[in-house]
Amino acid sequence: MENRANLDNITIVLHRPHFPENIGAAARAAKNMGIHRLVVVDPLDCDLTRMLKMATHAAEDVIGQMEVYDDLREALAPYQYIIGTTARTGSHRRTVLDPRQVAEKVVDLSRNNQIAVLFGPENRGLANRELKYCHCLVTIPTSDAFSSLNLAQAVMVMAYEIFRAGAAVPETFTPKLASSYELEAMYDHLKETLTKIHFVNPENPDYWMQSLRRFFSRIGLQAREVKIIRGICRQIDWYCDQRLTGPSAPDSER
Amino acid sequence: MENRANLDNITIVLHRPHFPENIGAAARAAKNMGIHRLVVVDPLDCDLTRMLKMATHAAEDVIGQMEVYDDLREALAPYQYIIGTTARTGSHRRTVLDPRQVAEKVVDLSRNNQIAVLFGPENRGLANRELKYCHCLVTIPTSDAFSSLNLAQAVMVMAYEIFRAGAAVPETFTPKLASSYELEAMYDHLKETLTKIHFVNPENPDYWMQSLRRFFSRIGLQAREVKIIRGICRQIDWYCDQRLTGPSAPDSER
Repeated sequence: MENRANLDNITIVLHRPHFPENIGAAARAAKNMGIHRLVVVDPLDCDLTRMLKMATHAAEDVIGQMEVYDDLREALAPYQYIIGTTARTGSHRRTVLDPRQVAEKVVDLSRNNQIAVLFGPENRGLANRELKYCHCLVTIPTSDAFSSLNLAQAVMVMAYEIFRAGAAVPETFTPKLASSYELEAMYDHLKETLTKIHFVNPENPDYWMQSLRRFFSRIGLQAREVKIIRGICRQIDWYCDQRLTGPSAPDSER
Repeated sequence: MENRANLDNITIVLHRPHFPENIGAAARAAKNMGIHRLVVVDPLDCDLTRMLKMATHAAEDVIGQMEVYDDLREALAPYQYIIGTTARTGSHRRTVLDPRQVAEKVVDLSRNNQIAVLFGPENRGLANRELKYCHCLVTIPTSDAFSSLNLAQAVMVMAYEIFRAGAAVPETFTPKLASSYELEAMYDHLKETLTKIHFVNPENPDYWMQSLRRFFSRIGLQAREVKIIRGICRQIDWYCDQRLTGPSAPDSER
């Protein structure tokens, strides 16, 4: 049973973004992950052309419905739960969660609450005076060598985790495998053919057959694949016989 | 005990990328997640300036060491395991995994094998003739409404999942909480003060006190927070007494 976040109650809030491209790319990432609500606070540049280029046609509606505010406090007023994103380097006295932990929280919270995921400006992230509005803090794990994420990339990771939270891991589909009856007949056939062409020593056929069995059992052969292998064996049989008796036999029916 | 992927054995391979910005952004995303190896096959445009603008200074080395090939088969030759990324819409007869499942596979495989994560061109993704090189296929889950991910965003999600795989979920740090002795003394003090200012009815003090207890117990108060609350109570006590007796008492020592 799936228990997923209510994505209609999630809003991405960008505080003082510098580049319209990042707003557009954030809109696209949000929409990819089923989040339609974007709020921008005091943007440096709201060039619609540059924004839409990155949003692409498919996320145009997210930009069209985007709300723009001058003041962060006012922008955040409607939200019951605010998640602040912050770089690992910040020296916070507060507990900082992992995106997956936050996404699990959001599954439950989003049923009855409006949730904002707040991102700071590209160059400095969220300052303490902005983080004070937040109910929880989250840091996207990164390599020690380079922790500064592009704004829209950070939006993608958070949106992806929220979209995925509570989703059942898709079952890996394993098709029906060949039965032991089919496999053993194939191994008999292989042994016969490989003995005929002197690949397998008739005195000690099991030496090579063991290796082949190990190799084939790792694959998990399906019935139709067993048929292909037996078809190749039959064709080898036929070709060898033909070479001995002259050209007359037809193509093998595979 | 952590059991993580060997990121030195992971390479991001971009097949026929159209935009140098996407190559640069992919380099940055890879480096953010500890992956340093980038291969580009038959790029449409290799404008270094546009690439480096998106890579930023910190991922310059990834671009500097990037290998460029004309031919996909040749580019993939060194890899023992190739992961093909494909949109959900593709009609594959093959099993398609989830990024998290693939990342778990990579943890084990990357110990002794060179692994390529292959991404197709922005406009069409990987064709079947390109997917044939792949040992497994992966689809990043997206909203039904808009499944087309930006190339560098797709690189980010895959790199993030591989970086995170096998990492211990960071423990949430819960600081030491106030003891029951400290809490009960606080509740006594609160009841006394709130009775004095006629917020709590002395005939039935428990009615409001129950609500306050429920509220405070949800917070998980720390000892220093208990001290702050008692400090406020003491100050109310002092202020009320002062109003009754005239201005003489000093500031409360908090």
